[in-house]
Amino acid sequence: MTSPLFHIDAESDLGLRDQLRQKLVSAILSGTFLPGERLPSSRKLSEQLGIARNTVTLAYQQLVDEGYLISRERSGLYVNEALVKGRADFARVAGRAETAKSTVWRNRVKAAPPAVRRFRFPPNWQSYPFPFVDGRFDRSLFPAAEWREANRLALGLREIHQWSTDSGESDDRMLIEEIRTKILPRRGIQASPDEILVTVGAQHALHLLIELLTDATTPCAVEEPGSPDMRELLLRRGVPVVSQHVDQEGMVVDGALDRCAIVHVTPSHQRPTGAVMSVARRKALLAKADAHDFVIIEDDYEFDVNADDAPIPALRSIDAGNRVVYVASLSKVLAPSLRLGFMVAPPEIIAEARRLRQLTTRNPPLNNQRTAALFLSLGHYNSTVVRTNRVFHDRLIALRDALNHYLPQLIAIDPIRSGTTYWVRGPATLNVPDLIREAEARGVLIEPVAHYFARGDAHENVFRMGITSLPIDRIRAGVAALAEIIRDVMGGVQPAAEQGVWLTGSALREAMAGATLLYKTVYGEPCSIELLPDGTMTGRAGYADEDRDTGRWWIEDDRWFRQWNNWAYGEPIGFHTTLDGDRVRWFNADRRLIDSAVISRP
Amino acid sequence: MTSPLFHIDAESDLGLRDQLRQKLVSAILSGTFLPGERLPSSRKLSEQLGIARNTVTLAYQQLVDEGYLISRERSGLYVNEALVKGRADFARVAGRAETAKSTVWRNRVKAAPPAVRRFRFPPNWQSYPFPFVDGRFDRSLFPAAEWREANRLALGLREIHQWSTDSGESDDRMLIEEIRTKILPRRGIQASPDEILVTVGAQHALHLLIELLTDATTPCAVEEPGSPDMRELLLRRGVPVVSQHVDQEGMVVDGALDRCAIVHVTPSHQRPTGAVMSVARRKALLAKADAHDFVIIEDDYEFDVNADDAPIPALRSIDAGNRVVYVASLSKVLAPSLRLGFMVAPPEIIAEARRLRQLTTRNPPLNNQRTAALFLSLGHYNSTVVRTNRVFHDRLIALRDALNHYLPQLIAIDPIRSGTTYWVRGPATLNVPDLIREAEARGVLIEPVAHYFARGDAHENVFRMGITSLPIDRIRAGVAALAEIIRDVMGGVQPAAEQGVWLTGSALREAMAGATLLYKTVYGEPCSIELLPDGTMTGRAGYADEDRDTGRWWIEDDRWFRQWNNWAYGEPIGFHTTLDGDRVRWFNADRRLIDSAVISRP
Repeated sequence: MTSPLFHIDAESDLGLRDQLRQKLVSAILSGTFLPGERLPSSRKLSEQLGIARNTVTLAYQQLVDEGYLISRERSGLYVNEALVKGRADFARVAGRAETAKSTVWRNRVKAAPPAVRRFRFPPNWQSYPFPFVDGRFDRSLFPAAEWREANRLALGLREIHQWSTDSGESDDRMLIEEIRTKILPRRGIQASPDEILVTVGAQHALHLLIELLTDATTPCAVEEPGSPDMRELLLRRGVPVVSQHVDQEGMVVDGALDRCAIVHVTPSHQRPTGAVMSVARRKALLAKADAHDFVIIEDDYEFDVNADDAPIPALRSIDAGNRVVYVASLSKVLAPSLRLGFMVAPPEIIAEARRLRQLTTRNPPLNNQRTAALFLSLGHYNSTVVRTNRVFHDRLIALRDALNHYLPQLIAIDPIRSGTTYWVRGPATLNVPDLIREAEARGVLIEPVAHYFARGDAHENVFRMGITSLPIDRIRAGVAALAEIIRDVMGGVQPAAEQGVWLTGSALREAMAGATLLYKTVYGEPCSIELLPDGTMTGRAGYADEDRDTGRWWIEDDRWFRQWNNWAYGEPIGFHTTLDGDRVRWFNADRRLIDSAVISRP
Repeated sequence: MTSPLFHIDAESDLGLRDQLRQKLVSAILSGTFLPGERLPSSRKLSEQLGIARNTVTLAYQQLVDEGYLISRERSGLYVNEALVKGRADFARVAGRAETAKSTVWRNRVKAAPPAVRRFRFPPNWQSYPFPFVDGRFDRSLFPAAEWREANRLALGLREIHQWSTDSGESDDRMLIEEIRTKILPRRGIQASPDEILVTVGAQHALHLLIELLTDATTPCAVEEPGSPDMRELLLRRGVPVVSQHVDQEGMVVDGALDRCAIVHVTPSHQRPTGAVMSVARRKALLAKADAHDFVIIEDDYEFDVNADDAPIPALRSIDAGNRVVYVASLSKVLAPSLRLGFMVAPPEIIAEARRLRQLTTRNPPLNNQRTAALFLSLGHYNSTVVRTNRVFHDRLIALRDALNHYLPQLIAIDPIRSGTTYWVRGPATLNVPDLIREAEARGVLIEPVAHYFARGDAHENVFRMGITSLPIDRIRAGVAALAEIIRDVMGGVQPAAEQGVWLTGSALREAMAGATLLYKTVYGEPCSIELLPDGTMTGRAGYADEDRDTGRWWIEDDRWFRQWNNWAYGEPIGFHTTLDGDRVRWFNADRRLIDSAVISRP
């Protein structure tokens, strides 16, 4: 036996004994120890590995109990031939040439995937300093202790007996009950157990519905921009796809929907723009559905990521016409890799979906269903949602403020206050593909948006930034770095500074003292600053002036300096300044335009 | 607060504190406690429930920590409004009439399921005394302790970090490695990681392959009898289905396969007959595939349920032409409800299947993948397989011997020694639907087979018996009961007793003394009994006389009695006897034919 085979990893979660057992089992099954071979004595092995002899003895004992080893009186432990025999030979089949491969399987795949643009973040995205990615899981938010507890309970013997004997058709009754009573009420939805089906994540629910409800005769509206997976699924089935525009209130409701049989929509947080569908828009959509007899697949994306006190109720909850099928994911706030979602639909649709699920995947793993049910029943889900939402909200506002601070003039975002992403519009001249490439090279990951559009030419100057995976203390530095990159990528492209006159010394002071500066934030809200002659200043932002701050301003080295108490990180900053009619512009040391405002005097 | 709400279940796996927490959480979320409402003091509540005050205090404390309750100085605990607000109202939407339902959703389902026969055991099958069902899970065999251990390890922090951050496309590397090194070698298969895809059970793998490889232009052969799910999936896609007969060596290989593009086959244990495909048949099938350029989906059903020392290697392992895609399930010997399977195929097929999986379900839950990986790496899978196989084998032989003892003359089975079911052929006059009904009414569950056939008329006299869910000590009584039921159902139908002459007294003794009796067992093997004049007897069964026993025979009350030492449960039994040429027949007290043999003299 070679000791390298038995390297023990001190870092591992597994104890020494478990690690040793792993190594011994694979040595036995891989034939490193031959059937009938005698194993080294516990004393010898413990010396070789430098671990306690007792550890080795216990590992050996377990393997004896499990039939891997046989103990012979006064002679030691041997590999049990009975357990190892019955393994077919390992002989590699001769003559299976690569050439054979290629010819045999060429043209076997009938479901040729349609040409759909895709985008992937680098697989090692976690090792980048500033991954503004969306939807990836922030492991620091996983409620490990609570999930472990629920899981431990789900593996209690009586629990196992309840979830382990099923036929594959039905779901865990306890989970259905918890969804009915703890999750759906949050969305204003009432449902009976026969109106709920558990799925392997929300995507699985969408797939089952598409398989059931669509064919070449059922035009289906999807959001533009919208989910590339949804579009590809429909195209693979030959379903006529209607790309319906999205604005700040979500999917536009107009005549283009009249000819549709099905409308897929993400009202809670439009994916990818993040727009929240207004109540008025929701009612208009439902009215349209009634008027033109189409049904709606409500994809309640990030339904639980919501910082507002009064979330807008789900379409299904205000749908008197019963035209809405509701789809949501349980694993967004847990871990995406747990793969738990569900749909709410009329019983006859659920029955058909259940039968199709039985043919294609059977039910989602019942051990996870029961664990999730216990997790919910113990209240962990609700508290996790609340905790996660607080974190996401704080990160989102931090991102908004950083964008406002480092990229005024250059970008614009919608005034979204919940969700996990911003849809960032740059100057028309911004070349996003170049920006993505340069940013990645400099450690900043942002997402292009072309793959969300059916039309390729669209939105060359837009990109997407997410905060699900970036700690709040990294956001400012990430945006600062991005701002530099954007300015570099845009290179010479600068608004003509020389349009105005450079202000210096007393001229600069006189221009500013007693003036009022009028801005718009990058998120579209008005902002005004009063500069008092005494060097103090007051700022008001937002339509209701809800956001206020005070600070100081002064002239130094022919530059205008300001420092807020809270805004702009409470740090002093100075600009070179030009005046051009009533437009004042500020430049950094390299004479690059940083910001501008309209200046006025009482 | 109403105490009924807080009934504590002493039986539950959950501790008192967890139960109390469950009750409190749902009382808060359901509004039984209103936001801001004060909770009863721990003293009061502990008295009401008759549990330790400390238990109540700890439950309360957890709810405070999780934000459900707020503690106010010197005044007690209150429901936290912040946590409860934000729940949309529970108002049932008015006017959603049942009528609306039916009209709106009528004719929405496009994928009209084909007319396929189905069969279901009663949902409460576990409460029947003799459930000879197949494929249902025997919870007593679930390796609860080992799974719990692997699961606990999978939830270690570093493990969570490895499985929780995935994008949904890739599988758990550790599980792929364990499948490669611990499972595939048992089937003689070598595969690289890019040739393996993990699925939500074997059915999911089959579905992905059908979606990829079939359309209206690809005739697909399925076994007849075979999997109804497979047939329905193909029919739903409009794939031409070729129903290919099955004999004692599995799927028949003949010209009917020549025109197929794909052949789906279950060689390890043909489902439903249980036939094991011989090596010769396997080679013939592979040669056919090469000759006529079709590919094979090897559905390695119950690949791990195998009592033989040298299992027949998988088709894929002896396929030089690389025409076989391999599909198997991990959860057969664990718990079907864990839903883990996998496929082995050329990298280009795996890549397409992975992409389709990404669109339809994403990857199977990674927490389960990692748990299974650890379960394998610690050697639990192998020892579970060995243990389970021993149990299944003993049950199967017990079933075989019971059928041989209680139903000679009436039924026939194949001489299968591994697997979990018997395909039981009764007399041509047996009406199986009647039998199923009567048996169920009398506590015996057996399975009809019509739904396994594409042609409805087939095999009216065949039924199926499984042992996956029946403890060995119930098998004899179950078969005894079934034998009675069969005789009752067949009613008057009896071979004419009066063909022969009744033997009694000395005539009976003389007829038997020194004679040799020649039988066939119900599983088709020869059996001979030598009756010595001294009242001893010797029995030999099997083609190699491998099965021998000795015993006594005698005459009593004009009946012939025999008692084996081991055979026939070592119990004495007596028969009324007729002789008809060289044919001896035995009858029970009601003069019902029980058995017969050819009698000869040296």
